[in-house]
Amino acid sequence: MPTFKITLAYDGTDFVGWQRQATGRSVQGLVEDALTHLAGTEIAVAGAGRTDAGVHALGQVASFSLDRVIDAAVVARALNARMPPTVRVTAAECVADGFHARFGSRSKAYRYRIWNARLASPFELRYAWHIFAPLDREAMDRAARLLEGAHDFAAFQTTGGSVRTTKRVVTESRISAPSDDLIIYDIAGNGFLRYMVRAIVGTLVEVGRGQRAPESLAAVLESRDRGKAGPTAPPEGLFLVGVEYGA
Amino acid sequence: MPTFKITLAYDGTDFVGWQRQATGRSVQGLVEDALTHLAGTEIAVAGAGRTDAGVHALGQVASFSLDRVIDAAVVARALNARMPPTVRVTAAECVADGFHARFGSRSKAYRYRIWNARLASPFELRYAWHIFAPLDREAMDRAARLLEGAHDFAAFQTTGGSVRTTKRVVTESRISAPSDDLIIYDIAGNGFLRYMVRAIVGTLVEVGRGQRAPESLAAVLESRDRGKAGPTAPPEGLFLVGVEYGA
Repeated sequence: MPTFKITLAYDGTDFVGWQRQATGRSVQGLVEDALTHLAGTEIAVAGAGRTDAGVHALGQVASFSLDRVIDAAVVARALNARMPPTVRVTAAECVADGFHARFGSRSKAYRYRIWNARLASPFELRYAWHIFAPLDREAMDRAARLLEGAHDFAAFQTTGGSVRTTKRVVTESRISAPSDDLIIYDIAGNGFLRYMVRAIVGTLVEVGRGQRAPESLAAVLESRDRGKAGPTAPPEGLFLVGVEYGA
Repeated sequence: MPTFKITLAYDGTDFVGWQRQATGRSVQGLVEDALTHLAGTEIAVAGAGRTDAGVHALGQVASFSLDRVIDAAVVARALNARMPPTVRVTAAECVADGFHARFGSRSKAYRYRIWNARLASPFELRYAWHIFAPLDREAMDRAARLLEGAHDFAAFQTTGGSVRTTKRVVTESRISAPSDDLIIYDIAGNGFLRYMVRAIVGTLVEVGRGQRAPESLAAVLESRDRGKAGPTAPPEGLFLVGVEYGA
């Protein structure tokens, strides 16, 4: 039973998300269907991060086992041949038995793109949140950095979440602005709660608009109250950049 | 009868092109319909460049006259409110009577994007031509530069064209490569024949693949024979970058 680890890039615009749903087209469903076709038997695939509808991936990781030995490059080609071009397997390898894309992950990195200009860009509609009010990038960055470290992120979790603990370690939380119109938020850490990145971005945007002070982020964390954080940012700006494994 | 000049950006993916057609959604049709709604009478719009189906614009220019005085900013807002977000008016001004976006243009600039990597990128499907064979960028640039100057471009014109002359002055024709996976072709000149940029790109790609020598471009120009040039590159990589007017 060889186990495989694959890396995927996808444009999430036209999907109901990574996870298979009762209706609609999911990335997991596409991968599983293509593997089932290849293997001649039903194959279950585990994904590292459950990207929501409209969220993109540059480096999602998934794992699965097949009951016969196949070259990993052949698996990658077979998947790419069967899936639409909005989903690509960018790497594939045979890994040690017991590897699990979700439970084995040590760290994940996300990026959120904000198009901050008077007019929306026709080319950024699927890939950024358009905010026409000018945002104070420096204030946003100061607020973002307050989230680095080990914290309880309950205030940034969708109400109704049922995880064992809401404590997470965030190793990077930074704002950058590669151009006048574009603001990038990069966050990496050992795990993320449901909608956590988007709730953080919604809060940082309030800071950028001057509606709350950068320093208030500490009190938001402290409160553990979702009502104290900002609104959930829309999915189209979010990218799962990569997942790390190992010691 | 004030005359207006507007600048437009659009994602051409879902349009039949700039020009109004018997069926399908055109950018010209959207602009004319929105203006007709604003003016209460039918308004005809002239576009600087007839971008084909799937071709994009960062700086298309269009002109029209209205029979009453309206602030140009109001016209821009009214158009943007009525058109889908894949088309944006990025600038609008009131200009001298007699201004015509097409006949008055002095120079146009186009850009063509090639995604040159083993795998297609899900994020470049609408905005680049994917070529997986490695391309020799240096050879392509040498070939591209041979097109700069005053030449007869009949070899790069769709057969059946009926323009008065096929002579054009190309002021810039350059290849650049901002990243390992991306090749950019920039061309500017005083006028372009139908499919000219795409026929040039198809020819440059043959150079990049080693199927023809860079120096052969001179003979292609000389021949005035469309059969001597390469195939027409697909529309999705092409962008009308801007149009210049004046002395």
